[in-house]
Amino acid sequence: MDRPTIDHRGPEFAALAKECLEDIKAVFQTEHPVLIFPSSGTGAWEAALVNTLNPGDRVLAFETGQFAILWAKLAENLGLKVDMVPGDWRHGIDPAAAAAKLSADSGHEIKAVLAVHNETSTGITSDIEDLRAAMDNTDHPALLLVDAVSSLATAAYRHQKWGVDVTVSGSQKGLMLPPGLGFNAVGPKALEAAKTSTFPKGYWRWDDMLAFNEKGFFPYTPATNLLYALKESLAMLREEGLYWNVVDRHARLAEATRRAVLGWGLEIWAANPGEYSNSTTAVLLPEGVNEAAFRTLVLDKFNLSLGAGLGKVAGKVFRIGHLGDFNDLMLAGTLAGVEMGLELAGVPHRKGGICAALDYLTETRKQ
Amino acid sequence: MDRPTIDHRGPEFAALAKECLEDIKAVFQTEHPVLIFPSSGTGAWEAALVNTLNPGDRVLAFETGQFAILWAKLAENLGLKVDMVPGDWRHGIDPAAAAAKLSADSGHEIKAVLAVHNETSTGITSDIEDLRAAMDNTDHPALLLVDAVSSLATAAYRHQKWGVDVTVSGSQKGLMLPPGLGFNAVGPKALEAAKTSTFPKGYWRWDDMLAFNEKGFFPYTPATNLLYALKESLAMLREEGLYWNVVDRHARLAEATRRAVLGWGLEIWAANPGEYSNSTTAVLLPEGVNEAAFRTLVLDKFNLSLGAGLGKVAGKVFRIGHLGDFNDLMLAGTLAGVEMGLELAGVPHRKGGICAALDYLTETRKQ
Repeated sequence: MDRPTIDHRGPEFAALAKECLEDIKAVFQTEHPVLIFPSSGTGAWEAALVNTLNPGDRVLAFETGQFAILWAKLAENLGLKVDMVPGDWRHGIDPAAAAAKLSADSGHEIKAVLAVHNETSTGITSDIEDLRAAMDNTDHPALLLVDAVSSLATAAYRHQKWGVDVTVSGSQKGLMLPPGLGFNAVGPKALEAAKTSTFPKGYWRWDDMLAFNEKGFFPYTPATNLLYALKESLAMLREEGLYWNVVDRHARLAEATRRAVLGWGLEIWAANPGEYSNSTTAVLLPEGVNEAAFRTLVLDKFNLSLGAGLGKVAGKVFRIGHLGDFNDLMLAGTLAGVEMGLELAGVPHRKGGICAALDYLTETRKQ
Repeated sequence: MDRPTIDHRGPEFAALAKECLEDIKAVFQTEHPVLIFPSSGTGAWEAALVNTLNPGDRVLAFETGQFAILWAKLAENLGLKVDMVPGDWRHGIDPAAAAAKLSADSGHEIKAVLAVHNETSTGITSDIEDLRAAMDNTDHPALLLVDAVSSLATAAYRHQKWGVDVTVSGSQKGLMLPPGLGFNAVGPKALEAAKTSTFPKGYWRWDDMLAFNEKGFFPYTPATNLLYALKESLAMLREEGLYWNVVDRHARLAEATRRAVLGWGLEIWAANPGEYSNSTTAVLLPEGVNEAAFRTLVLDKFNLSLGAGLGKVAGKVFRIGHLGDFNDLMLAGTLAGVEMGLELAGVPHRKGGICAALDYLTETRKQ
């Protein structure tokens, strides 16, 4: 992306955009359109809502963590009514709770279900396929809108097969890019809903965007240089092996991270092993440890940025990110920084967590 | 350096060159001129020889490893007569052997002593201060020419205080740059010798170079973009703390590396702890291990480039580099790659060398 910006109304740009718009579909596992906004993931959240719903509509959401809360708050700011299923932040979405809510909604007031696939704040991945099945069993017509910001290209994700209506994502996680691109993968039912949506909207309009995209253009100035980067990112993912090689790499590095955490005698925040995240691991610190001081020490001494606890878990957990352009030895360096940081900060722990991680990495490299 | 190339006869270039030529002196610890050639370190070797000596002159060298041999071969190619003190490649230069050779040379036929400060091929650093003292004790007038290619900005080096006549170096080691710049730090005695040197020379002429450098220019096209990079590299070294912070960082990472090697139950190739290198550690593999296959496995599985054994030690040792833009967690990743590689290649070793390294790194971070 470190190249001069080309004319976004010229033929060179059209070829680039058409290639990106086509090739990004494989990452979402869909044959339907994917729209690319010059925006953050939050913008893509808003685009998903304002194109498919109407002001005053009721939506169902699940309190799985900080990002679920933020998406619900955005929906409320837009004038939607959010029915939030409470949660303890240590579990993913409960499909049975979703089914109960939808079954009870005999008047079909709920127009959409908002689900965060991977909660970056807690390191918990919800099962979208199960959620879809639970929704289908109720014969409720609500749309399924999924936030796959931090799961795209890190965990298995199948927009079309799972029957997701809109998948929201961003450029700065599994796609390995700087922030600045927001994505909406849209299914036929969502496109149908968009025809009658009455939200006032300009920037986020799907119809304009899709019409321009046909010819490789955008209705307004696109993030041109980020599209150079996206083209390269998609090539890198293909070279590694879309789909499963990329997912397997993340799963393996995540498991190694968890072995280190258990090796240190610390607790993985996620309560359910079936919901462990491929992209982030949140670690519960022992009572009395100053979480901010620990992270500050690790940053100062080792130039390693650990994630803070967010929202409800602020001060209780820290987060280890292990996604994107990331490999065995980068993880080893990361875990070394955490282990040395635990020692230097006087956090009660057992030494040698990194060895447990390396044992697992070695064992799984034997094939 | 990823910027357009400027006119190397213009005022912007002159300011850049003057700054680099002045600021590089602190790295060599000298107040005398340092010349910068668009060349590799081998070019800087040649420049040191052809400016100070005459065809047919005798020089004294020490077989400390592969680079000592290569420098001697270059000298022979130029028509110099090389008196090589044999060595077992596990020890640095023996000052007593140098003194004996010079004392025996009552006719002062030996015009220069060629010393490699840090042997990259073996991970052994010779004591240049002791060598100088031994030479001084003999009252022999031979010049002292030192190769500091892989020691500059990694180990303590004092061109002026130690009385080195020419120090040769390159851009691609402690200076953290791509290859492409060769350096000659020159002392007054070397400049005096240059006045009467009869070697045919054009590119390597010090007199032309020094005359142009006065005004911030070069006699021919300089490696302009590498000079942008050198300016930044010198700023980085100053920010970290020239002189001792940079050296201490390398010494600490080198010691951690050696603790890992000993933790694996492997042997450090360097025989004398006083000569351990700050920049490279050569590790002796157990009898029967295929060294090339081991390094290939580590490269394939972990994208980690270990150094091959060179020359006499080819197939016997591998080398871990730990110099330049390198920190605790990069070393942890490196050692993790070696440890997992040893396991996967079936090299007899004890596990947990990395833990010994991390213990040391943690302990020395407590201050």
